[in-house]
Amino acid sequence: MLSGPYLLYIGDAPDELSIKSSRGMAQWRPEACVGQYRAPGSALTLGLPDMGFQQAKAAGAQTLILGVANAGGVMAEGLTNDVLAALAAGLNVASGLHQKLAATPIIAEAAARLGLSLFDAREPSEPMPIGKGYRRAGRRVLTVGTDCSVGKMYTSLALERELRRRGVKADFRATGQTGIFIAKSGVPIDAVVADFIAGAAEWISPAREDGGWDLIEGQGSLFHPSFAGVSMGLLHGSQPDALVLCHEPGREQMRGINGRALPDLATCLAANLQAARLTNPDVQAVGVALNTSKLAPDAARALCDQIAGELNLPCQDPVAMGVDQITDRLLACVAS
Amino acid sequence: MLSGPYLLYIGDAPDELSIKSSRGMAQWRPEACVGQYRAPGSALTLGLPDMGFQQAKAAGAQTLILGVANAGGVMAEGLTNDVLAALAAGLNVASGLHQKLAATPIIAEAAARLGLSLFDAREPSEPMPIGKGYRRAGRRVLTVGTDCSVGKMYTSLALERELRRRGVKADFRATGQTGIFIAKSGVPIDAVVADFIAGAAEWISPAREDGGWDLIEGQGSLFHPSFAGVSMGLLHGSQPDALVLCHEPGREQMRGINGRALPDLATCLAANLQAARLTNPDVQAVGVALNTSKLAPDAARALCDQIAGELNLPCQDPVAMGVDQITDRLLACVAS
Repeated sequence: MLSGPYLLYIGDAPDELSIKSSRGMAQWRPEACVGQYRAPGSALTLGLPDMGFQQAKAAGAQTLILGVANAGGVMAEGLTNDVLAALAAGLNVASGLHQKLAATPIIAEAAARLGLSLFDAREPSEPMPIGKGYRRAGRRVLTVGTDCSVGKMYTSLALERELRRRGVKADFRATGQTGIFIAKSGVPIDAVVADFIAGAAEWISPAREDGGWDLIEGQGSLFHPSFAGVSMGLLHGSQPDALVLCHEPGREQMRGINGRALPDLATCLAANLQAARLTNPDVQAVGVALNTSKLAPDAARALCDQIAGELNLPCQDPVAMGVDQITDRLLACVAS
Repeated sequence: MLSGPYLLYIGDAPDELSIKSSRGMAQWRPEACVGQYRAPGSALTLGLPDMGFQQAKAAGAQTLILGVANAGGVMAEGLTNDVLAALAAGLNVASGLHQKLAATPIIAEAAARLGLSLFDAREPSEPMPIGKGYRRAGRRVLTVGTDCSVGKMYTSLALERELRRRGVKADFRATGQTGIFIAKSGVPIDAVVADFIAGAAEWISPAREDGGWDLIEGQGSLFHPSFAGVSMGLLHGSQPDALVLCHEPGREQMRGINGRALPDLATCLAANLQAARLTNPDVQAVGVALNTSKLAPDAARALCDQIAGELNLPCQDPVAMGVDQITDRLLACVAS
């Protein structure tokens, strides 16, 4: 179990993409983050005070979050030394790397000796059940996408925030390592054994009777040839009442797949709705979330208007415009 | 690596369903099976000579195949004792149980001490790659289904046999434990980590330039709420040129899911073709394979004719009728 406050790790990470999880924490849980740890000369910043490990501990930090990715996900020597130094300073350590902290003997030994905790966000915390698809109580929104990394986590979190702002009970349900840091719970759904994908989605969003919403973080895309199995199981297990389609306009090819074009939005949405009906025949699309960060504001607005007209759905950039229209549609469409 | 000849295990298994893998071996590799091992009083038989472990070893058996399933997949005491006795007699042991032989210390220790091999068919033998969906050479058939356990493995094997009978190169590619026993290789695709489903399918059916066919064993169903993620990844990774739809008429509900009806054949086939087009836009349906074992021969024949007319595809029961018409269509449809 993660315990804050946190020190966020940057180290000598080379670029924004490689500090994605630390960035997510700084963005969504700033009140829980006391500082950032950078190697000398780092040009990246999360906008938090720079701190060493002992300084962070003195400032109240309980856990160092290794919210970084590195080539191959292996635990390089510099990173291992930083983890050992953090443990020596009395910090627990949480990691989103493929290589597990607990599987690195020198780290596991130090943590045990010092009585500190290690948390591997890419490791499912317990055995998952087999999904059954039986109708369960509660209201659920799943974000789906034209591709990987198009803003599904951000959109789910923005919907949680907007619903709560309106006094509606809502809980983000995490399926990836950054989301798990933010939510302090969840299942890294791409790391579960294939037979249990739908079951893991059922497990993170169990029946609820309090009238609240589960905002489930989507993964991958039904149109991504590497990961569509994960997306499909997540779609069935989530049993969503509503889908929000996420997309980054201008992307020339699917992430990691040379020469493969993204699906068009209408085709992608129709395929997701069709698959989702297996476990919830009443599923509806309630909006489109665009990442327009590479467009000028006027162009972004015009594109949202165009897509909204084509799909007859509210279309917004959650970062630049918020999700108020999507939330309006959600609350209007799905009976309470 | 599995080495025959084999002794097939029945033990005190209670019913046909629980000896499914031993039955599959006896059916498809009879020439490699020297006998069966049964507990006293067993009413089940594979039609092979009854043998003890030492007797089997003397008759040339190299490996005991635990082709049985038991409640929860755990290694019960009686089963463990039988494995230890088989090892003591000099037999290697292969298992399709969820509980791994290698993870049972008393068994692992005995095998190591005696210099014998343990083979867990439900354990992926090496790390799988990420699927990419890039077009690769070769011709591939995937069996898909309305449900689990409707004859996908049997149909794939029957197609392999029929193609070989006609002098066409063809290789069955196994994705489940029974198939892995039969093929002596393959990947238990429901046991790989979710991110690697499509990659595992690519791995078992790599590019081939010899003009031969890969007959890939399907798993689950796009319409099964527990396992559709596996089916989807397998569909994308297999990159099939042709699909054969498998079905058991008369089944009242999806396997393991109370009250859920099976999809109709046309809907199921259309959804599979649609998904398969992601990695092979030219995919075609070439036949329907029915398990008509619960129907009278006349009724079975009439149902095949009816479905053939409705879907405009050859429809046969591979067990009762063979797969010659499906093979004709396959060879006519897919250019060599």
